[in-house]
Amino acid sequence: MNSNYEKCLEACLECLEACNVCFDACLKEEDMKMMADCIRLDRECADICAFAAQAMTRNSPFTKQILELCAAVCERCGDECAKHNHNHCKRCAEACKKCAEACRQMIA
Amino acid sequence: MNSNYEKCLEACLECLEACNVCFDACLKEEDMKMMADCIRLDRECADICAFAAQAMTRNSPFTKQILELCAAVCERCGDECAKHNHNHCKRCAEACKKCAEACRQMIA
Amino acid sequence: MNSNYEKCLEACLECLEACNVCFDACLKEEDMKMMADCIRLDRECADICAFAAQAMTRNSPFTKQILELCAAVCERCGDECAKHNHNHCKRCAEACKKCAEACRQMIA
Amino acid sequence: MNSNYEKCLEACLECLEACNVCFDACLKEEDMKMMADCIRLDRECADICAFAAQAMTRNSPFTKQILELCAAVCERCGDECAKHNHNHCKRCAEACKKCAEACRQMIA
Repeated sequence: MNSNYEKCLEACLECLEACNVCFDACLKEEDMKMMADCIRLDRECADICAFAAQAMTRNSPFTKQILELCAAVCERCGDECAKHNHNHCKRCAEACKKCAEACRQMIA
Repeated sequence: MNSNYEKCLEACLECLEACNVCFDACLKEEDMKMMADCIRLDRECADICAFAAQAMTRNSPFTKQILELCAAVCERCGDECAKHNHNHCKRCAEACKKCAEACRQMIA
Repeated sequence: MNSNYEKCLEACLECLEACNVCFDACLKEEDMKMMADCIRLDRECADICAFAAQAMTRNSPFTKQILELCAAVCERCGDECAKHNHNHCKRCAEACKKCAEACRQMIA
Repeated sequence: MNSNYEKCLEACLECLEACNVCFDACLKEEDMKMMADCIRLDRECADICAFAAQAMTRNSPFTKQILELCAAVCERCGDECAKHNHNHCKRCAEACKKCAEACRQMIA
């Protein structure tokens, strides 16, 4: 296993965690109505990151396509989270950007 | 495959759909803040229903334990949805109750 | 919900079931060594079908991309299953082809 | 987040990886027929580990029950892998045992 693989897997798992932490925290925010897109995209992103981690580790013949999709979802979720000032959103935005980049390097 | 198996699988798939429809609709409600527990439990319940459908159909050695867990999550999600007057919540509560019952009959 | 949506969701769920039934049956075949690709692709295909069903029903903003991927995986799994004479493989090949087509009609 | 949480999450993710690596490797073994139970349980175990990681990180109200189930599946998968001499099986057995223990400490 090469270094891109390891970085990508780690980035997916960290992004999964950051998205789920953000999902949970958004559901407790006072301004929850403003967080609707964030809640939706956190779930989308955590789920595709989990799917990508499973695909990579089982040597899926569709790893490349799954990582392309994962990068697109991470990008969108990161853009949404970057609009909000909550710490969990900022941390999630960072993890999403890092994961999108790692997915793209892995499939380059 | 016996009739309990077919009923249980169908109930899990219908519950997955009802929970996800409710999740999506809750995120668009005006009173979204009141729906926080519903949103959380809709995701929990859709995910365990998908997991249960996968387990049943692949003849998992852990089907019984997974269906027990599925019944417990459906019960809780159904109780939460039953508190709200939105049509998507009412439909979800009904699908959850039906699924909890089908899981219990399957493992009886 | 329109008729393409309903057909596609139903096809994904039937394909999930056929793939998992085939996975389980392949693991019990005498000529199991010949079924290695089938076993691998059955898991790939069941997992993306479950993922697609979740995405469609929660109104995912990535439904189109996920269904494109689902169609590609179904196509490949169906091609592999079509090489084998076991009844579970034939049934799986049919469900895969039907699902690939339904995904493509849904996103057309 | 406490130290038991971090250990358990890490153990689940490492077990997911070890199980999927073992699944992929088993499908390439000459004595693949002997690995049927291992292949089946590797999938079971990777899937429940992914499910547990998702549940823990989104603060699921069902974390305890999911980790109990995860521990049981890890135990069984680890016992099966321990019967085989392949390096991927030995590594998987170790990851499974460690994950079962971490799940139990987390919910103690």
